[in-house]
Amino acid sequence: MPPDAPLPQFDDVLDAAARIAPHARATPVLRAAALDADAGCTLAFKAECLQHGGAFKFRGACNAVFSLDPASAANGVVTHSSGNHGAALALAARLRGIACHVVVPEGAVGSKLALIAGQGAVLHRCAPTIAAREAACAQVQQATGATLVHPYADPRVIAGQGTAALELLGEAPDLDVVVVPVGGGGLASGTVIALAGRAPAVELVLAEPAGAAETLLSLQRGERVTDFVPDTVCDGLRGTLGEPNFRILRDHRVQVLAVDDAATVAAMRLLLARMKLLVEPSSAIALAAVLGNRERFAGRRVGIVLSGGNVDPDRLPWVAH
Amino acid sequence: MPPDAPLPQFDDVLDAAARIAPHARATPVLRAAALDADAGCTLAFKAECLQHGGAFKFRGACNAVFSLDPASAANGVVTHSSGNHGAALALAARLRGIACHVVVPEGAVGSKLALIAGQGAVLHRCAPTIAAREAACAQVQQATGATLVHPYADPRVIAGQGTAALELLGEAPDLDVVVVPVGGGGLASGTVIALAGRAPAVELVLAEPAGAAETLLSLQRGERVTDFVPDTVCDGLRGTLGEPNFRILRDHRVQVLAVDDAATVAAMRLLLARMKLLVEPSSAIALAAVLGNRERFAGRRVGIVLSGGNVDPDRLPWVAH
Repeated sequence: MPPDAPLPQFDDVLDAAARIAPHARATPVLRAAALDADAGCTLAFKAECLQHGGAFKFRGACNAVFSLDPASAANGVVTHSSGNHGAALALAARLRGIACHVVVPEGAVGSKLALIAGQGAVLHRCAPTIAAREAACAQVQQATGATLVHPYADPRVIAGQGTAALELLGEAPDLDVVVVPVGGGGLASGTVIALAGRAPAVELVLAEPAGAAETLLSLQRGERVTDFVPDTVCDGLRGTLGEPNFRILRDHRVQVLAVDDAATVAAMRLLLARMKLLVEPSSAIALAAVLGNRERFAGRRVGIVLSGGNVDPDRLPWVAH
Repeated sequence: MPPDAPLPQFDDVLDAAARIAPHARATPVLRAAALDADAGCTLAFKAECLQHGGAFKFRGACNAVFSLDPASAANGVVTHSSGNHGAALALAARLRGIACHVVVPEGAVGSKLALIAGQGAVLHRCAPTIAAREAACAQVQQATGATLVHPYADPRVIAGQGTAALELLGEAPDLDVVVVPVGGGGLASGTVIALAGRAPAVELVLAEPAGAAETLLSLQRGERVTDFVPDTVCDGLRGTLGEPNFRILRDHRVQVLAVDDAATVAAMRLLLARMKLLVEPSSAIALAAVLGNRERFAGRRVGIVLSGGNVDPDRLPWVAH
């Protein structure tokens, strides 16, 4: 996306909501009195870990796939992601009956690749560098005419991710603040747009791993920081904030809270104990941000998007292996 | 309850639904396409692990407590249970603002007792025998005038437990069969009554641990079997089928499937991996019954009550300790 390309607007989020409604799950908004007592505020959790594919990623992928005109759709879609976006795009493409190509780096986790291949996508292996990944994507595009659907910088993806916040506001209309994790910024920027259009008085707080806090730094400096080496248990939040995502966050009032991995793992365990929900560290970080900043949230009505739940039950991070 | 006491009827379940509505959670009915594919049928899960107190037990306890006339209520309630019913009764009593006494055997799990005490209940310790438990209950009743609320044989409890099935049918009206676990029989007999009144064509299947399959034996023999030593990981299903519960099950067409613990633990792990939900072995057994009897359920629409989720995340049964 070129630096001056138009950004997605609230109408795009509304269009996305209508477009994905026949395919996506309207996930439940869950509450737990015991957790409210722990946190000292009133929590409403949008359980996107119960979304198709186990993560909110299906919303953006589905919006992108079903936005394509028939001629483009016939050539399929391509992306680079060995994680939730790859599986989500593969599922959305299967639902539309079109081809999906996923470029995956050597060394990606086998179980995640199996999920992507299980949806019928074609895997293309490449060296584990950004240059190799982009070259492989370009090659697939040239050979097939497939449309690139970037995991978080694509405006159709951003608009789709914003639909989770719309549904959350529908179920919990009296929220004071919404907390979501930020990595590449697809969910964060989609949520900004949804809140600004539907409930502008609701504050947005982003939770970012302390070991990959380049969004915090980028917003402080007023320019995108791209040279950093992520070091965090939150595997979904290691990516670099996208360019349009940066512009959207910069143009709105958002606050970023950095969270240590230990606090994130403790929150993940607490969500399992108190809410009976298994979420990824990349999702639990939002609750950790609330628990680690009690005065800031005290007595308020806090909405949290639990972004995904794709965790191996045999490798829970608080269990010794 | 004397052997000829009247059994709860469908109207009692409807009354219970209205009575507990202001207090209980209308828990969501959840689905997971990946699990459907595993099971070869269409599954709808009533997530009572998300109920107050983490289990369906709150429904029956709440119905019993709010059924009391003011004079009886003023004297409080008493029960014997070191598990989910004790915590549920304590919570219901706190909501009504009355005293709750819970008789607990020596050796009960400290964390569960802390949950009960945390709701403001008074703990009364006794020796770990049925005689000592009943004597302690009688003593509390005599000293305080408290009303006994039995964990599963009380007709108000049975009617309350039936409300989970009512809500399940409301969300998933096209079910062919409902599967619930059976231990003391509170949920099983409440579900029988709810189905018979609301959807008599829907079949009921009970899942029982092979190591505590006295309900199966009791229904085969036509009389209650009470002399058995339970040996199962399903700690919520070790109790003996209650007398009224037996009569209710006997009078309706139900089938009992015995399930090995290994299959139950595998189903528990699968629910965590695919549904992102942490449930007790005593709940996962219902899914295990479906997975272990594929031909029986193939292609059908199956409702499952996930009865509870009170599990220590540090002691998951498939993780070596």
